[in-house]
Amino acid sequence: MAHVNGIKYEDVGNIFSLNFIKVMLRGTGQVMFQNSTWAGFFILCGIFWGAYEEGQGLVAWGAVVGLLVSTLTGHLLALPNKDGDQGLWGFNGILVGCAFMTFLGNTIFSWLALIFCSAMTVWVRAGFNNVMAPWKVNSFTMPFVFTTWLFLLSARVMKGMPPEFMSTPELPGNFSSDLSLAFGDLVIYWLKGVAQVFLINSWVTGALFLIGLTLSNKWAGIWAAIASAVALFIIIVFRGPGSDIANGLYGFSPVLTGIALGMTFYKVNRLSALWCLVGIIATVFVQAGLNVFLTPLGLPALTAPFCITTWLFLLPLFKFNVKSEREVDHSNWDRKKQEKEKEAQEAAEAVK
Amino acid sequence: MAHVNGIKYEDVGNIFSLNFIKVMLRGTGQVMFQNSTWAGFFILCGIFWGAYEEGQGLVAWGAVVGLLVSTLTGHLLALPNKDGDQGLWGFNGILVGCAFMTFLGNTIFSWLALIFCSAMTVWVRAGFNNVMAPWKVNSFTMPFVFTTWLFLLSARVMKGMPPEFMSTPELPGNFSSDLSLAFGDLVIYWLKGVAQVFLINSWVTGALFLIGLTLSNKWAGIWAAIASAVALFIIIVFRGPGSDIANGLYGFSPVLTGIALGMTFYKVNRLSALWCLVGIIATVFVQAGLNVFLTPLGLPALTAPFCITTWLFLLPLFKFNVKSEREVDHSNWDRKKQEKEKEAQEAAEAVK
Amino acid sequence: MAHVNGIKYEDVGNIFSLNFIKVMLRGTGQVMFQNSTWAGFFILCGIFWGAYEEGQGLVAWGAVVGLLVSTLTGHLLALPNKDGDQGLWGFNGILVGCAFMTFLGNTIFSWLALIFCSAMTVWVRAGFNNVMAPWKVNSFTMPFVFTTWLFLLSARVMKGMPPEFMSTPELPGNFSSDLSLAFGDLVIYWLKGVAQVFLINSWVTGALFLIGLTLSNKWAGIWAAIASAVALFIIIVFRGPGSDIANGLYGFSPVLTGIALGMTFYKVNRLSALWCLVGIIATVFVQAGLNVFLTPLGLPALTAPFCITTWLFLLPLFKFNVKSEREVDHSNWDRKKQEKEKEAQEAAEAVK
Repeated sequence: MAHVNGIKYEDVGNIFSLNFIKVMLRGTGQVMFQNSTWAGFFILCGIFWGAYEEGQGLVAWGAVVGLLVSTLTGHLLALPNKDGDQGLWGFNGILVGCAFMTFLGNTIFSWLALIFCSAMTVWVRAGFNNVMAPWKVNSFTMPFVFTTWLFLLSARVMKGMPPEFMSTPELPGNFSSDLSLAFGDLVIYWLKGVAQVFLINSWVTGALFLIGLTLSNKWAGIWAAIASAVALFIIIVFRGPGSDIANGLYGFSPVLTGIALGMTFYKVNRLSALWCLVGIIATVFVQAGLNVFLTPLGLPALTAPFCITTWLFLLPLFKFNVKSEREVDHSNWDRKKQEKEKEAQEAAEAVK
Repeated sequence: MAHVNGIKYEDVGNIFSLNFIKVMLRGTGQVMFQNSTWAGFFILCGIFWGAYEEGQGLVAWGAVVGLLVSTLTGHLLALPNKDGDQGLWGFNGILVGCAFMTFLGNTIFSWLALIFCSAMTVWVRAGFNNVMAPWKVNSFTMPFVFTTWLFLLSARVMKGMPPEFMSTPELPGNFSSDLSLAFGDLVIYWLKGVAQVFLINSWVTGALFLIGLTLSNKWAGIWAAIASAVALFIIIVFRGPGSDIANGLYGFSPVLTGIALGMTFYKVNRLSALWCLVGIIATVFVQAGLNVFLTPLGLPALTAPFCITTWLFLLPLFKFNVKSEREVDHSNWDRKKQEKEKEAQEAAEAVK
Repeated sequence: MAHVNGIKYEDVGNIFSLNFIKVMLRGTGQVMFQNSTWAGFFILCGIFWGAYEEGQGLVAWGAVVGLLVSTLTGHLLALPNKDGDQGLWGFNGILVGCAFMTFLGNTIFSWLALIFCSAMTVWVRAGFNNVMAPWKVNSFTMPFVFTTWLFLLSARVMKGMPPEFMSTPELPGNFSSDLSLAFGDLVIYWLKGVAQVFLINSWVTGALFLIGLTLSNKWAGIWAAIASAVALFIIIVFRGPGSDIANGLYGFSPVLTGIALGMTFYKVNRLSALWCLVGIIATVFVQAGLNVFLTPLGLPALTAPFCITTWLFLLPLFKFNVKSEREVDHSNWDRKKQEKEKEAQEAAEAVK
């Protein structure tokens, strides 16, 4: 048995072990970049609370199935256990589960497709990360977005898994920007913006997510809160669609961008905070743009706006040095990637 | 004159030599990954039979012109003769020819565009392959898909080459999943699924293709047959569009994925067979998803679902070792690529 | 203060210096690959003339603001001054300014978005160029296209910046190819084709652009003139949409392709001229195809057809040697890139 930092990696595949539960919870946390069982626990509680509050309990069970299937798939494919142990196999799968049960009818075929798609995210992630490795970026939740888009589109020509809860395809046109701006309502929109990361429309869920994030790392909680608030301000000022704003649909992508740029890929400092704020604002426009782009297909943007914007802000490879000359810190998030980079650097130095 | 393995490479450009005809036939075979004149011969027979059976003989002549133009273009551009000799210049061009005469009206401008687009696939392929080389994948038939999409879209604003036989652009909506499931009909759908690789709607053509594939390599025939059958099963079970299924439009991409994953890029063994089956199933959903995505444009998906799915299954760079420790075998399909990889590996080793 | 070739790089950020004005003019020229203050001056005159002639003076002021903001952003981000000095920070920003004021209503929020988007092009360009560097191509005006697409789409769900002058989203359908073919009219279409590079619908502007180009480099003027003429011929012969042709909307992308392939990235010789002509023709079809693709969104193709086509023609990395064995010349256009390549080559040689 291999031991690294006291973690038994072989346990990942033993679904009756306590460690497996921890891995599942870390997978839940990793959607928001938290390698933390406590974050995962609170997020999962939030998902169950919100799903049942909405009368859509299946969304929560879809999440569990997606998480379980993708984690096991990583094990079956014998991918590096270090990734699995950090929950990096499961975070796309749990989102697949939420999305399928949010948008598709509850049929046996929807569940079969959910299982297939969750599993697929694991090797799609491996492939995407191979493609992106030279530029030191990661595929984030794009494996979830890409595969789920294909399956949700498929549902429109498959009566076996009907797209019951998806929008009707239509040409971009009129919309109403009417929205209550009472303080209490704004707080609800703000919290729902956080909750919608997992496609949950509940302010309680948003609050639980913020608690989980803060327990994992205070800056994660702070940036999630800031991001949802800033995004809400921008989209209200630019007078976006009222009902979407009220349901938090302009908040979830900026929340992820905020956590990514604010504390995951850059050290927390004044310059990176400014960069992160700019990124949060940009995400609002990317979200609006993608929403319109997908209107003729009646397809949700999912977390694509976060992925695209965060890539746009990481790809220039800017380093925001502060007095102490700290460099870009890709943190502990993805050890495997760091090792690869290190090898590449050593190879490059060997050349010189 | 350069001789490699007894083949006179300079002959590629001599259109009156026997070798040139062989090169053209190999180009036909390469659409299905077969560097084989016999496979090409049977496939070409299938194209002519099916085209005339449908009363669209021009499709077959379009194929010949596309094949000829693209093969000559490779020669004119002085690309490496080894590629040309294996038919790797012509396989995109022949598909361009089939597609243009399937979807566009028979005008002088359609033919001019066909010639231009066939030629263009040759350098687009060179460019795409350069882009993809670092990840050890190939552009497959994407040069055909990409350029043909652009020209077919163009046709909608050019009265000179009217898009007479393309679908009307419409928002995704209702469809009928009615379909006869009589055994004889299922066999016809299954064979048409193979024939549609070249946009031919004829079960006889499908049978000729299977014969040609099997003559080249029994596993090519076996995987093509399995892939069309599995795809048919999946799309019927998920209750897809009846008329599309009956015309074999859910079969052709899985057939190509099956040949690619089942015997071209992996050694034939139990693990790779399982991987290939998963790939075939995934292709069905990618096909359905792309079909819906392109509905507002009235554009056919062509072989894009095969390309996308096969990339998704090759990019993780999994090696399915069996007892004898065999590794991923990129076979004899693209010698040039292998040589490049070898050089890259040697360079990498030199660094260490 | 750093001096290279007698240029004070630190001056880029001093907006009251004469050098800053030169940098702004070079940024204007760089849209058409001209590192020339005189080209920039004539182009800017053309923009002002055309904008006021059309009664849309704001387009010219948008251009100035976009240029200013993006140039200052490059300075604030402390990007390599050599780039800024050549106008490579500003050329995307000026196009953002033209596009926003052409398509959006004149509100405070449209201007805020214009400023934000202009700034964003600078780091998006840095990121895109990092991505493309391994294949020795540049992002061209794609940072402008990509970010502007997102913001223009956004405008459809933001009442704060209404898409007043954008086309109505509709499914691709009927169009009229009626067009006056009188010689005088053809000359006007031809000159408007040049002017539309900056979204200006004025033949005087086109003439001013041609003068500016020719002052910078006679081949730039010649290829721009040839490209607009050839594109006009092709789209008329294929009977494209009459009103678009009359407004020069099929000319601007080919003009950019012509300058790029004809004299910027290849030495001027007979073979590269042939290659350039093929590229110009291809651009017409890419333009038509993208126009149709974007119809359901009511989104303009901007200069995407130029970017895509030029990439397709550069990525094969063909070298058109003439007697004197000249090689592909990426000219003086982007010194930074060349230096990177040189370093890469030296590293590669060190390996051997």
